Amino acid sequence: MSSIYELRLHKLRSYLEKKQIDIALITNPTNIYYFTGFHSNPHERFMALIVDMGSARESMIVPGLDLEAAQQHSFVRDLIPCSDSENPYDLLKDKVGRTRIGTLGLEKKAISLHRVEQLQELYPDVHFTDIEPFIIQERLVKSEEDLVSIRRAVDIAEKVLESTVQKVRVGMMEQELAAELEYKMRMFGGDKPSFESIILTGKRSSLPHGKPGAYSIQENDFLLFDFGVYAGGFCSDITRTFLIGEGTKEQETIYETVLTANLAAIQAVKVGTPYGVIDQTGRGVIAAKGYDAYFNNRIGHGLGLDVHEDPSINGENEMLIEPGHVFTIEPGIYLPSLGGVRIEDDVYVQPNGQVEVLTHYPKQLRRL
Amino acid sequence: MSSIYELRLHKLRSYLEKKQIDIALITNPTNIYYFTGFHSNPHERFMALIVDMGSARESMIVPGLDLEAAQQHSFVRDLIPCSDSENPYDLLKDKVGRTRIGTLGLEKKAISLHRVEQLQELYPDVHFTDIEPFIIQERLVKSEEDLVSIRRAVDIAEKVLESTVQKVRVGMMEQELAAELEYKMRMFGGDKPSFESIILTGKRSSLPHGKPGAYSIQENDFLLFDFGVYAGGFCSDITRTFLIGEGTKEQETIYETVLTANLAAIQAVKVGTPYGVIDQTGRGVIAAKGYDAYFNNRIGHGLGLDVHEDPSINGENEMLIEPGHVFTIEPGIYLPSLGGVRIEDDVYVQPNGQVEVLTHYPKQLRRL
Repeated sequence: MSSIYELRLHKLRSYLEKKQIDIALITNPTNIYYFTGFHSNPHERFMALIVDMGSARESMIVPGLDLEAAQQHSFVRDLIPCSDSENPYDLLKDKVGRTRIGTLGLEKKAISLHRVEQLQELYPDVHFTDIEPFIIQERLVKSEEDLVSIRRAVDIAEKVLESTVQKVRVGMMEQELAAELEYKMRMFGGDKPSFESIILTGKRSSLPHGKPGAYSIQENDFLLFDFGVYAGGFCSDITRTFLIGEGTKEQETIYETVLTANLAAIQAVKVGTPYGVIDQTGRGVIAAKGYDAYFNNRIGHGLGLDVHEDPSINGENEMLIEPGHVFTIEPGIYLPSLGGVRIEDDVYVQPNGQVEVLTHYPKQLRRL
Repeated sequence: MSSIYELRLHKLRSYLEKKQIDIALITNPTNIYYFTGFHSNPHERFMALIVDMGSARESMIVPGLDLEAAQQHSFVRDLIPCSDSENPYDLLKDKVGRTRIGTLGLEKKAISLHRVEQLQELYPDVHFTDIEPFIIQERLVKSEEDLVSIRRAVDIAEKVLESTVQKVRVGMMEQELAAELEYKMRMFGGDKPSFESIILTGKRSSLPHGKPGAYSIQENDFLLFDFGVYAGGFCSDITRTFLIGEGTKEQETIYETVLTANLAAIQAVKVGTPYGVIDQTGRGVIAAKGYDAYFNNRIGHGLGLDVHEDPSINGENEMLIEPGHVFTIEPGIYLPSLGGVRIEDDVYVQPNGQVEVLTHYPKQLRRL
């Protein structure tokens, strides 16, 4: 079990050596999990993995109250507990054991200006460099083991969705369905939602990030489910939109347009092609029907330990599609006056370059 | 409805004027909510409230897909949508409309080094100053309206707890109870858990931040619930520990010690007293019984729009208790070999200085 962490830390150390970085200080909890197997949300507390090229052993500052959990789960064994009345920077200085650091590697998107200023006070001459792009790059390529977890997170989500859809009745409220959905998530073995579940009915389905509330399902509504399951450290993310009753011709047109965009975008996934092409392809289908003004976000995003990670699949992204990547494809049309449709799948590029759609929940228009 | 935001923005502007800060850029989503009434988790996207002393009107950059929601909820009307392929710093520059800024106010604990570097590139001579302590100070003192929401969040949590406790049976798994608890939360009108619900049984109850899993409740276990409800923008946070069956004399001693510490710490709450005294008082009770090595975290924390906010109630905190503050008091004893007990209440210091315990769920040892 420890070997993946050993391998990941080894690759990190090679990178640090090549870039002449003296110490890496990793504070993003997901990245700490990636390198140590220990997952915790420290809230405002200081938690940091220290990879010092002057020492063969990694160490980690953990909130005192997480020590026992870290002892159970962390591959890194040199754990430094920090109580709520201690100053973590004092502990860091003690561990590092010298007064000067040449180059300190940080995750620049994760570390706050406040923390940077604390570090600058400790080491006034230090030079900061960003190691986050390297870590993001490493996390992009998923292993076979990762896929086992991702498939399981998808599988739970699909079971949860079908079981919740069975309960849908006119008059039910969005928040009742959300309660039901998240209850099933746990009962089917998920740890928690991978983000705030979105269940929206009627016109509200046009809010890409709306929250389920005391709104009841009416005849001819669109009913949109966008949610994911966090299980075994990985996330799934799926959207399906249903029609309550017969609906109108326009609703059907919108649905079919989004479905065509979804299928065309998936078809556009090819190793060596820029990610932007996926967005352009899906968007092109929607534009051809005149709805492009109503699709105002990117078509997808990377998926893994985080529910949103690289790549960002927008039309401008020139990054190339490569084996091992996992991402969502989720075109939509959002008409404030009528409601929205989004159809989202999770896609995996296999090591041999074959494109596999991980989500299997049917996509043809379904009336409830 | 808009008047509280007007008042808050007015106070912020007075502060900026006094401190000679040219522009404030607020990026912490909770603080954006505090000043605008619009709440969103932008994930990695850029969202910022711009308070420019050179302009009478506030503006806000919002992710394109949140525009409709922001139009519905934000008191600040000048909304600048940023699509996923746009550069938000270009939009910021256009809005600010000048090439130099003297002093830019930021939340130094919220803003990442990456964003700071982007801002530095836009405005090479800019001086950054921290406006977060001011905002934290403002948020510390809760209004009567805030209390209505907090009381409701507490009330829902207590109903949820009692209803879940009724279902407890030997052999049930922690994760089943968590599913049940969070289902009730939604059904009783809560928006979501205010943090990851902690339900732990047996020895696992000694993990202050443990996650509910496939562990079943056994005779003589401690069963610990620590959770909260997020409702109407505010958080509650409560912990109660139960005994399954008769238990041992030592379990009873531990429970009674924690309860005594909880009551003594609440007694120590007095306007004008340093917060540290609360922690010292509770810890003193636990130390007198010889269990101080098993209480390794602070006794409490502020509660409001965030589930953890100022004050941090640790023994070193010299900040004075003042009217309007709301915080938790949660002593515990955690014995890895036996399990843990924590009893947590939410406390409000009324405008007249009277101390009110907001949580009413009984605290005497209860056997299930």
